Amino acid sequence: MTDKALQIQSLLREDQVLEVRLAEVPVPTPAADEVLVRVEAAPINPSDLGLLFGAADMSTARATGTAELPVIEADVPASAMHMMAGRLGQALPVGNEGAGTVVAAGDDGAAQALLGRTVGVFGGELYSQYRCVKASQCLPLHEGTTAEQGASCFVNPMTALGMVETMTMEGHKALVHTAAASNLGQMLNRICLADGVPLVNIVRKAEQAALLRELGARHVVNSSADSFVDDLTAALRETGATLAFDAIGGGRLASTILGCMEAVAVEQMGAYSRYGSDVFKQVYVYGALDFSPTTLNRNFGFAWALGGWLLPNFLQRAGGERMQRMQRRVADELTSTFASHYTARVSLAEALSLEALAVYGRQATGQKFLISPQR
Amino acid sequence: MTDKALQIQSLLREDQVLEVRLAEVPVPTPAADEVLVRVEAAPINPSDLGLLFGAADMSTARATGTAELPVIEADVPASAMHMMAGRLGQALPVGNEGAGTVVAAGDDGAAQALLGRTVGVFGGELYSQYRCVKASQCLPLHEGTTAEQGASCFVNPMTALGMVETMTMEGHKALVHTAAASNLGQMLNRICLADGVPLVNIVRKAEQAALLRELGARHVVNSSADSFVDDLTAALRETGATLAFDAIGGGRLASTILGCMEAVAVEQMGAYSRYGSDVFKQVYVYGALDFSPTTLNRNFGFAWALGGWLLPNFLQRAGGERMQRMQRRVADELTSTFASHYTARVSLAEALSLEALAVYGRQATGQKFLISPQR
Repeated sequence: MTDKALQIQSLLREDQVLEVRLAEVPVPTPAADEVLVRVEAAPINPSDLGLLFGAADMSTARATGTAELPVIEADVPASAMHMMAGRLGQALPVGNEGAGTVVAAGDDGAAQALLGRTVGVFGGELYSQYRCVKASQCLPLHEGTTAEQGASCFVNPMTALGMVETMTMEGHKALVHTAAASNLGQMLNRICLADGVPLVNIVRKAEQAALLRELGARHVVNSSADSFVDDLTAALRETGATLAFDAIGGGRLASTILGCMEAVAVEQMGAYSRYGSDVFKQVYVYGALDFSPTTLNRNFGFAWALGGWLLPNFLQRAGGERMQRMQRRVADELTSTFASHYTARVSLAEALSLEALAVYGRQATGQKFLISPQR
Repeated sequence: MTDKALQIQSLLREDQVLEVRLAEVPVPTPAADEVLVRVEAAPINPSDLGLLFGAADMSTARATGTAELPVIEADVPASAMHMMAGRLGQALPVGNEGAGTVVAAGDDGAAQALLGRTVGVFGGELYSQYRCVKASQCLPLHEGTTAEQGASCFVNPMTALGMVETMTMEGHKALVHTAAASNLGQMLNRICLADGVPLVNIVRKAEQAALLRELGARHVVNSSADSFVDDLTAALRETGATLAFDAIGGGRLASTILGCMEAVAVEQMGAYSRYGSDVFKQVYVYGALDFSPTTLNRNFGFAWALGGWLLPNFLQRAGGERMQRMQRRVADELTSTFASHYTARVSLAEALSLEALAVYGRQATGQKFLISPQR
């Protein structure tokens, strides 16, 4: 076995340049409770792009380095340097999740039991040819499941399941989801259909609405339509949804959702109150497709909350038992409910080409890249 | 005893005019579990102004009616009519709290026990000469306490105590308060000094900062100062506050508070994370001194929440035992910790004069009116 392997690293330099490069790093030796995974597939998720390219101005992106060890450089606006001061000068490995084969294991029984198995891994640094992790961080895939099928077994599946679990834990009865035609959104739609959870899908284009309807979605509203507020209010009235997960973050969408939820609650009130309804309405922001500020009109009474939602924080709160139950379901339904689809497969070096970046960097719904580190 | 009495009512008319009038209404007879209170003092709180004048354009205010039964009329912008549709055509009594003497009581023992007592009352319609309420809604004041001393025994005291209780219930260690020189803010400052709770007071003027410092406040920052962000960050570092109560609502203040809390949390992190710290930061909006939209920059990671906070909703969550403990403390410390100060005393008719409205309608810090319905 080789003692050096390739890894993608993202480095913010003092001269206000972000440098994303392919580097050679030593292959680690697993400790007693660890395994060494030969990474065979790792998706590029929106959540990876933030660490890859931070707040760099990607219109300035240029290719440097060599064909074997390519580098992409891009300028970072002065205003963004302060926000990223914490990562200055550190070559940060990237890649939240992936899958591959366990090729070496520590002495512990749990580690040895994984030797030769195909496993899904969560925990960063997966845009690497080899990744050493604790045995407990691995999700062993069922016999016959490929690394490509298991590459996205954590971020999207656990996030989608986490939304439904959050709904249950916090006493809501139905869900709203924005950017709902995404890979994650389609997954959530399948879970909700299977579990009988009413789901309001908000999309931005008519063709996305059509796609979701084809996939069986019952409530789909288009935020670009003139009738959006009326359509959303009607869907909220039918479903009783008082909880929304928003991938967009910026702009007025969260405010509009809270306002429409409140309008439905006020319809059902017996008497007027200038403080609005006492129906509790929650929007969680779990993404940042729009970095602009969030604007709230506060025309939705006082029984509301807007907050951040992050998978690791949720899992900590959910506890080990709930998490294991969620992971068993992911393994069982990996090629159905939790199947991901990729529009392109690239090597580590190809991922650092300007051509590939121009496509996956746009975060367009329906576009999803898979990195194959062994190519 | 008279069978008719005066009451202030607020009516939104179909012709887009808000009409606030003095009306004669029958004096009710208490049911078995009720008492009839002769209202002797009722404050004009910011929370009353919303129901009194709704979203009317007060620059159009004009006096109509008679000297005995005055009326103030004001135009309502078309855009605001929709929001207030729920109150159209209803003559709504006003006045969240007040105090007076129990002059009649139902047959139940609890009601009879209050006969002749001076009590504080919460529950609306207190801008009336008589108010019939359940005995359980009364806070019996200690012997020798006057109605004027007890008039504000609910909204501000229970809100200020509720902030400290919320801090304890939700696991925070210190508080931030905006519009901190207000009557409520001074009360909160006294509670926090007595209880050893670190409190960061945010004010908008240098003289308000000086006033709070005179009153013993240890952490006072002025949001109009150029050094505001640095000053606030320093105060958050010293106190460890991760919970704020915001009376203002509109603009960027809530966002700035969350951003400064996150800056302190990030200082204490071992390693960089693009998701920010996992220190949970909460801002509750409990007022609307600024009706403009709330703008959030979201430069504070994912462990945050912004939400509405309303006293009745809090009390429901807090439970009866906690509420009774809070009320006992209010009664015990009504002339010290929970003392309110009034800058003017007016009759019901005088409250509906354009001269008085011009003063109390501005909601200026330091100005507080008391209505004396028996004058």
